[in-house]
Amino acid sequence: MMLLHYIFLMGISVEAISGAIAAGRKRMDFFGVMFIGCITGLGGGTVRDVLFNTHPITWVAHPHYLLYTSGAALLTICIPAQLTRATKLFLVLDALGLAAFTIIGTQRLLIYGMPEVVAIMGGLVTGISGGMLRDILCNDIPIVLRSELYAVIALGGSVLYVALEHVQVTPSWNIFITVLAIFLVRLMAIWRHIEIPKFDYAESSMRTRKRGRKQAPLPSDE
Amino acid sequence: MMLLHYIFLMGISVEAISGAIAAGRKRMDFFGVMFIGCITGLGGGTVRDVLFNTHPITWVAHPHYLLYTSGAALLTICIPAQLTRATKLFLVLDALGLAAFTIIGTQRLLIYGMPEVVAIMGGLVTGISGGMLRDILCNDIPIVLRSELYAVIALGGSVLYVALEHVQVTPSWNIFITVLAIFLVRLMAIWRHIEIPKFDYAESSMRTRKRGRKQAPLPSDE
Amino acid sequence: MMLLHYIFLMGISVEAISGAIAAGRKRMDFFGVMFIGCITGLGGGTVRDVLFNTHPITWVAHPHYLLYTSGAALLTICIPAQLTRATKLFLVLDALGLAAFTIIGTQRLLIYGMPEVVAIMGGLVTGISGGMLRDILCNDIPIVLRSELYAVIALGGSVLYVALEHVQVTPSWNIFITVLAIFLVRLMAIWRHIEIPKFDYAESSMRTRKRGRKQAPLPSDE
Repeated sequence: MMLLHYIFLMGISVEAISGAIAAGRKRMDFFGVMFIGCITGLGGGTVRDVLFNTHPITWVAHPHYLLYTSGAALLTICIPAQLTRATKLFLVLDALGLAAFTIIGTQRLLIYGMPEVVAIMGGLVTGISGGMLRDILCNDIPIVLRSELYAVIALGGSVLYVALEHVQVTPSWNIFITVLAIFLVRLMAIWRHIEIPKFDYAESSMRTRKRGRKQAPLPSDE
Repeated sequence: MMLLHYIFLMGISVEAISGAIAAGRKRMDFFGVMFIGCITGLGGGTVRDVLFNTHPITWVAHPHYLLYTSGAALLTICIPAQLTRATKLFLVLDALGLAAFTIIGTQRLLIYGMPEVVAIMGGLVTGISGGMLRDILCNDIPIVLRSELYAVIALGGSVLYVALEHVQVTPSWNIFITVLAIFLVRLMAIWRHIEIPKFDYAESSMRTRKRGRKQAPLPSDE
Repeated sequence: MMLLHYIFLMGISVEAISGAIAAGRKRMDFFGVMFIGCITGLGGGTVRDVLFNTHPITWVAHPHYLLYTSGAALLTICIPAQLTRATKLFLVLDALGLAAFTIIGTQRLLIYGMPEVVAIMGGLVTGISGGMLRDILCNDIPIVLRSELYAVIALGGSVLYVALEHVQVTPSWNIFITVLAIFLVRLMAIWRHIEIPKFDYAESSMRTRKRGRKQAPLPSDE
């Protein structure tokens, strides 16, 4: 489906903008902003191809993708306020991008003959690794691990794709259904502020401690 | 040796628990906790297989390993206080896991025909990378680089394995001896609080400065 | 050119010293210092070989390179003040190292038959990734993304190499010209304090906001 490819190009550009904004928050220089932009947009596929040995990685096979991501980063430098004002549009496009990344990642590993469980992991990795690399390079804890219903939607969409392929749904329909499903669920999660429960180790071990016995510190306590 | 495999499974689970606890300290959500658990348990082998091109990586060949690590992370969410109370047992199991990781990593590279020095590096990488990835994702400096006699024991155990293979010790005996050696030395290091000296750049360059001449700031000073 | 190889060996050693100093600033132990030293010196080539699948990675093919980097790190532990005093020499050698890394990286990918754009990216990656890994492991934002004219010089040198090869300049002359060009431009950037403009997202979006309308927070705002 050609449409999926266009959504993908839009997706890497939107991701690159989110990377450029994060870099600008840390006052990086123009090179840093473009670098983080490219890593955020194309890092997901890169991590996937390195982990699963599905070389060549995307932007080596198609170096012009780098023009989209660095162009989007440059645009962010030029008109930051306008982009900031378009927050809602941005979230919608990002949701669409997540859908495209996940399904393209899952597909790719299936085409390479990987087992279905592995293909599902590949979809997840493609969907979330770009943003994780952005946060690591910006010295933050990856936001995808802390809040928002994001990764689990990618995981669910990937499972759905594999399941539908299992019951012989044609690829075009499968892509259409799963991309739409990821997109809509993600939008709903944003609008309803649905999040996954958090695990607060200090608090939850404390709570039980009250009822409990004497306590030794954990090994990795510094 | 089948036993080594069981120790390995125990090892990835224990490592996953340590990852889940670290994630809980940073108040990650349930997905983040399971993700960090899996990365901590299986990251060492993953980094090794990516670096040394010994694909497929462990959990691609055996996706059910992900059940152990994510199961262990889930367990940590459910009974954090009980796990915290079992600190001593935890340290003992972690020492055993380190031994298994290191020897399995060394073995694997030897089987792939890598030179012995490279196999030793592979053992080290397998032993310490999971915890390093955990700390990077949790936005901490990797503890293995800062304190505790841990990495050097892995390195020593790996050297011992290669040396014993050199003098024709049978694989079973070699595994038995080296796993035991790493395990016991690690336990001793914990109990006697043996650590490697630290390099305090500010202090040690200051000390000499006193006796010294005028001083220019270093390039990477911010 | 044999000379390029010697500059390379000098380069990984100088990089290792910069890694060891960074590790010492974070009070890592001796193992951590040597580990960071090796990663800083050899990480650039490692990231390149993993990304572009040009295995075996440098230090697997030539494990004795690890002696240079860990030796340089040990030296830093022994005589930190003397090294600190040699700041200017250090900067000159580092500039020479950057030149060697970049050109060797570019060359390697061309030899592997990669498209020219990809080879240019390979030169950049080889030049900057070691320092980036050092900063990530030390829990800092990579300095190469924040300040100093460094990465762009590597990029420019890599482009120059590819361009000269295009017009049939012999490899020896090409290496000589491009290494010298990178070296001199880098020295000039240091002496004249030339930097790339920075992108301050908070400030630049604020400035336009003044003239603007109501404002919604960005998605990844925590």
